[in-house]
Amino acid sequence: MYKIERIKNGVCAPKGFRAAGAHCGFRRNIKKNDLSLIVSDEMCSAAAVFTQNKLKGAPVIVNREHLRDGRARAIICNSGNANTCAPGGLEIAYETCRLTAAELGMDEKDVIVCSTGVIGSPIYIDTFEKGIPRVVKKLSNRGSKAAARGIMTTDKSVKEIAVSFTLGGKTCRMGAIAKGSGMINPNMATMLCFITTDAAIESEALQAALSADIKDSFNQISIDGDTSTNDTVAVLANGLAGNEPVTGPGKDYDAFCAALHAVTTYLCHHIVKDGEGASKVLKCTVSGAPSKEVARGVSLTVIQSDLVKTAVFGEDANWGRVLVAVGYSDQEFKVDNIDISLAAGKRSVPVCEHSVACLFDEDLAKDILSQEEVYILIDLNQGNERAIAYGCDMTPDYVRVNARYRT
Amino acid sequence: MYKIERIKNGVCAPKGFRAAGAHCGFRRNIKKNDLSLIVSDEMCSAAAVFTQNKLKGAPVIVNREHLRDGRARAIICNSGNANTCAPGGLEIAYETCRLTAAELGMDEKDVIVCSTGVIGSPIYIDTFEKGIPRVVKKLSNRGSKAAARGIMTTDKSVKEIAVSFTLGGKTCRMGAIAKGSGMINPNMATMLCFITTDAAIESEALQAALSADIKDSFNQISIDGDTSTNDTVAVLANGLAGNEPVTGPGKDYDAFCAALHAVTTYLCHHIVKDGEGASKVLKCTVSGAPSKEVARGVSLTVIQSDLVKTAVFGEDANWGRVLVAVGYSDQEFKVDNIDISLAAGKRSVPVCEHSVACLFDEDLAKDILSQEEVYILIDLNQGNERAIAYGCDMTPDYVRVNARYRT
Repeated sequence: MYKIERIKNGVCAPKGFRAAGAHCGFRRNIKKNDLSLIVSDEMCSAAAVFTQNKLKGAPVIVNREHLRDGRARAIICNSGNANTCAPGGLEIAYETCRLTAAELGMDEKDVIVCSTGVIGSPIYIDTFEKGIPRVVKKLSNRGSKAAARGIMTTDKSVKEIAVSFTLGGKTCRMGAIAKGSGMINPNMATMLCFITTDAAIESEALQAALSADIKDSFNQISIDGDTSTNDTVAVLANGLAGNEPVTGPGKDYDAFCAALHAVTTYLCHHIVKDGEGASKVLKCTVSGAPSKEVARGVSLTVIQSDLVKTAVFGEDANWGRVLVAVGYSDQEFKVDNIDISLAAGKRSVPVCEHSVACLFDEDLAKDILSQEEVYILIDLNQGNERAIAYGCDMTPDYVRVNARYRT
Repeated sequence: MYKIERIKNGVCAPKGFRAAGAHCGFRRNIKKNDLSLIVSDEMCSAAAVFTQNKLKGAPVIVNREHLRDGRARAIICNSGNANTCAPGGLEIAYETCRLTAAELGMDEKDVIVCSTGVIGSPIYIDTFEKGIPRVVKKLSNRGSKAAARGIMTTDKSVKEIAVSFTLGGKTCRMGAIAKGSGMINPNMATMLCFITTDAAIESEALQAALSADIKDSFNQISIDGDTSTNDTVAVLANGLAGNEPVTGPGKDYDAFCAALHAVTTYLCHHIVKDGEGASKVLKCTVSGAPSKEVARGVSLTVIQSDLVKTAVFGEDANWGRVLVAVGYSDQEFKVDNIDISLAAGKRSVPVCEHSVACLFDEDLAKDILSQEEVYILIDLNQGNERAIAYGCDMTPDYVRVNARYRT
């Protein structure tokens, strides 16, 4: 319906954005990028969604304050330490914004600050003092990958995307980087994701678009059921594409939302694919639901079940566990006429009809479950709403990765 | 406060109860007991609590009907097949009660039927037809262990207990067996547990005692966050101890509840100890809570966190994950003044004070986490209520056990 095309350069694809990443010493044992910066040449409309965990990382508290005016120009983010429950953490988050703003010659209130990594470890301002000038010096319009690497923790793959789309006849661009892997469970916003665009859009419309989008993107993914204290998805829109500014509902707003959804669902896929220890992507679609909420809630409950996840890892068509998870989801609906199929690529196999076991080809089911991307298709047969949730299997490596995360 | 003493013989310890277990062919690959029977010589007051999963195993539906009059005399239970979503499952559950009642010469409405095992696999009445006479023949007042073995699935240890206690000067006995191991997550009743007693207690008082007890026993345990479709805790009280019947609140009711709680918490401990793949018992106490519900909810959320469980397996004092789980629990309370300690035996180490990291002895913390029973002590510092939740660590073996559960 909308023409959305993949382009290169991630968060630097939109006009007027530069980025960088550098190793600055937040992570002592590994020499990987651990400080990232994204900067717009011009002031941006800004919108963000944050964790719903009652306990919030210090940066989340600062960002709520800095984004009150719907404007921002830079995002600074370290990895290796979440700055959550760290002594003096709030002051350090403010100071990080001040140092970044001073180095870039902008107002400290236009800086968004994020942190990810170990929770409750001391964090020191010196590391930022030394690191910020270093990362500012590296800023370039080819710096998206370096920035994407700088926010990674246990991630194995860089998560980056950019697309072009059209608003009012003008070509616009949107780019994004994200961090995934562990402590990934939807609750409002999940994980870190930074999105840039040169589309002109007012901050209220931008916030509305983002808040609506995450309900079917980041809020529908789960790797381990643990909701982080630092989850942040932030969008900067600098308007350099020169389109007539999007101010609210209408054709351009819909086109913007379509581009945003293409970007966020791409990242959802790649976040779960790179889930800690994951060997497969697991997607669950729920159709025939009486409401969107039921479809979202049920699909999410299924991909969160440790028992479903381990069965998928074992390539065992133990679909009873799927139905059990459907049953304990906290949504209200009827469970007496549910159909379940397993699918991969173009092949599928029904395993349950009208909530009763049906005879099925175990070899075909096993073969489907051995693919890299497995679908669980659930039809509740009581309405027309549908939703999809994104997860991964659970493997012995998940336990290994998390048994010694701090070392 | 109450004199409660451990005695032998499990569910056969109370006067007038016999039990048996036998291999009858529900499990084809392993020659272990897979059908169990518990019978009282006299009619019993009966009470039960069942799963809150919207999807219910056929036996749960039958038992709700059979227990409407608060009376029962026998419990028949197979393992290896949950009789949930199996074709014709409801008819098979009714027929199982009829066959058992005929063999024992009682009313079919006085039989409680339970099933545990794979969900959605076909189950056949012939296996019951052959098995029931076999298990009836084996009934004896030494049969508790055989019955306990008959309800086990992936359990490695027999879960059985008996105690003696006093009501109105009369010695009473209470015994119980339970099944644990996987798909264990509190929601009303969790897992299977059958309790017998020769105390005289009216069925309404018995139901009240059981419903109150599970809030701090079975509803506070979790192994994998998956709520089964077949969870059932049932109590049979035949009155043969000759005490003045307990009819409601009072001294005897409290003494009965104390004995019941001793039995249920013993089983909780042994169920989580034998959690699938578990290497350690993990107990979380929450004190200083504004209400009992907050204390229960928070402690349970902590022991359900995969990230907390894997850190405990890795003996890594990554206590930030504990605070994260506290923060995403769905209870309402303040998170700015929380103290956390890790403890085992008589040693403990504070790791977080006033919601901020404190310096701690990492070697001591590691040593505490290497013990077989680890406590996470959380003080919310905002009230006087407390609760405890029971769980276990998560190991690579959990994944291995569950990757190929059906084979």
